[in-house]
Amino acid sequence: MINKLIEKIKETQAPIVVGLDPMLDYIPEQVKEKAYEEFGETLEGAAWAAWEFNKNIIDTTYDLIPAVKPQIAMYEQFGLPGLLSYQKTIDYARSKGLVIIGDVKRGDIGSTSQAYATAHIGRIKIGSNEFRAFDEDFATINPYFGTDGIKPFLDVAKEENTGMFILVKTSNKSSGEFQDRLVDGRPLYEIVGEQVSKWGEEHMGNEYSYVGAVVGATYPQMAVTLRKLMPKTYFLVPGYGAQGGTAADLKPCFNEDGLGAIVNSSRGIIAAYKNEKYAEFGEENYADASRQAVIDMINDIKSVF
Amino acid sequence: MINKLIEKIKETQAPIVVGLDPMLDYIPEQVKEKAYEEFGETLEGAAWAAWEFNKNIIDTTYDLIPAVKPQIAMYEQFGLPGLLSYQKTIDYARSKGLVIIGDVKRGDIGSTSQAYATAHIGRIKIGSNEFRAFDEDFATINPYFGTDGIKPFLDVAKEENTGMFILVKTSNKSSGEFQDRLVDGRPLYEIVGEQVSKWGEEHMGNEYSYVGAVVGATYPQMAVTLRKLMPKTYFLVPGYGAQGGTAADLKPCFNEDGLGAIVNSSRGIIAAYKNEKYAEFGEENYADASRQAVIDMINDIKSVF
Repeated sequence: MINKLIEKIKETQAPIVVGLDPMLDYIPEQVKEKAYEEFGETLEGAAWAAWEFNKNIIDTTYDLIPAVKPQIAMYEQFGLPGLLSYQKTIDYARSKGLVIIGDVKRGDIGSTSQAYATAHIGRIKIGSNEFRAFDEDFATINPYFGTDGIKPFLDVAKEENTGMFILVKTSNKSSGEFQDRLVDGRPLYEIVGEQVSKWGEEHMGNEYSYVGAVVGATYPQMAVTLRKLMPKTYFLVPGYGAQGGTAADLKPCFNEDGLGAIVNSSRGIIAAYKNEKYAEFGEENYADASRQAVIDMINDIKSVF
Repeated sequence: MINKLIEKIKETQAPIVVGLDPMLDYIPEQVKEKAYEEFGETLEGAAWAAWEFNKNIIDTTYDLIPAVKPQIAMYEQFGLPGLLSYQKTIDYARSKGLVIIGDVKRGDIGSTSQAYATAHIGRIKIGSNEFRAFDEDFATINPYFGTDGIKPFLDVAKEENTGMFILVKTSNKSSGEFQDRLVDGRPLYEIVGEQVSKWGEEHMGNEYSYVGAVVGATYPQMAVTLRKLMPKTYFLVPGYGAQGGTAADLKPCFNEDGLGAIVNSSRGIIAAYKNEKYAEFGEENYADASRQAVIDMINDIKSVF
């Protein structure tokens, strides 16, 4: 899957991923109204609106991008109907040839991580049958448990040619509270990063590992160090745009081959129609605004290379 | 909810929680056969078996215990049907008066944590209606993102009188890899513990905080220090039994008032029928074996006080 992701990045010339985070505030009124008319102001109604919204954004952007990253929390809040929309979004994105990064941030002790790995990037055996529950290509993983929380994800990923992005340095303001604490004179995120790089050696693609890292765009100086520490690790980079990261901030996340990073934007793309810059599109044409925002994001990133 | 949990612990004289982790290997053959006959060897079949298994264990143990802790990963691996069983398990346990600890280990940046908090310990507003998606009383939370990943859980918990247990020192072997790294001469888990204690001051019950900590039974020395650092924090203690923690190891997790900790056992109780000690019950009477294992666990813990 890391090979396919890189191939698609080269093909589209777009090292970006669209974050499909359908918060109710981001979904245009007419989409919600239609959904509520049919399903009522219910979990089903909200979930259907989320799916309709995603589908239209996928339809108008899939030819420009390599991947999408649905954030499962945004679906989980709508309960089971929401998770059905999560699943439909994954299936639909795959039918359009997109790589799917399930932003699930799972992680636990061994046997539990095994179950999460099975759910998201693996297969479950039931009697003599096998099923893929959510069927993402990559999942994001929390490293707090250490190696035996990660190992089951690695084992499953090796068997299935799927992959993961492990949290190293997150994009949020208080990420430093624990991640930046000095351990033997070095910040914890570096220690985690080194470990991610080692885990990654066990599951290599052609040029990069199936085991990537989450490295926030909001901390470019730290990205410089991490890039050196983890040369064969793909970075999934949140924090561009709405969270404050600029194109120039992204540069240290990339290697000299122009690869090594894929930059996420969620709100900046899916809710582009709410941005003054794209107001001319109007709420009705929200998906076209998203397409334009994708084009602008690609050009913005290109401008610093 | 922390007040209710403590009340129930006092009432049952049982500072324990039954971990409802219905892995297929734990579910008796006859339960699976019945489920597969009705639903096939499918996700639905596995999920129904999990629900049936849970229901019987709740029925035979609910009068002895204050709480259950379903591990959502074990349901997530069965996809949407699995998550329906998770929801049914929660609803059924609540109808029996049990406190529900959703073992979800969620955590992310602020807006995403907000969605997780809404999903598990809060309410979502859809149009003019409000819904509780999964409706647990407590959720387990991963602290790697720092304060702004925790704050939304705190805010929701305050509004809803729900609570959380934040990972401090986990029970698994490699938990030390990052959690024990020395920061200014002190292990990271202490730094996290201090922070949990501070967060907890914002949402206090009568004696203890609504913000608890996960502290593994497998590291009793560390529990001694953490108990002192976090006097008003309830500990959710995994690692007893199957993972190697003994009753003596649990003692430092408790305060002198005999409160302050609730000890989880999953496999040791729900799969007791597989243990030689309870073999006389037979696979058919797995739920009775679980009841006996609960009684033995309570007595085992009492023996060290």
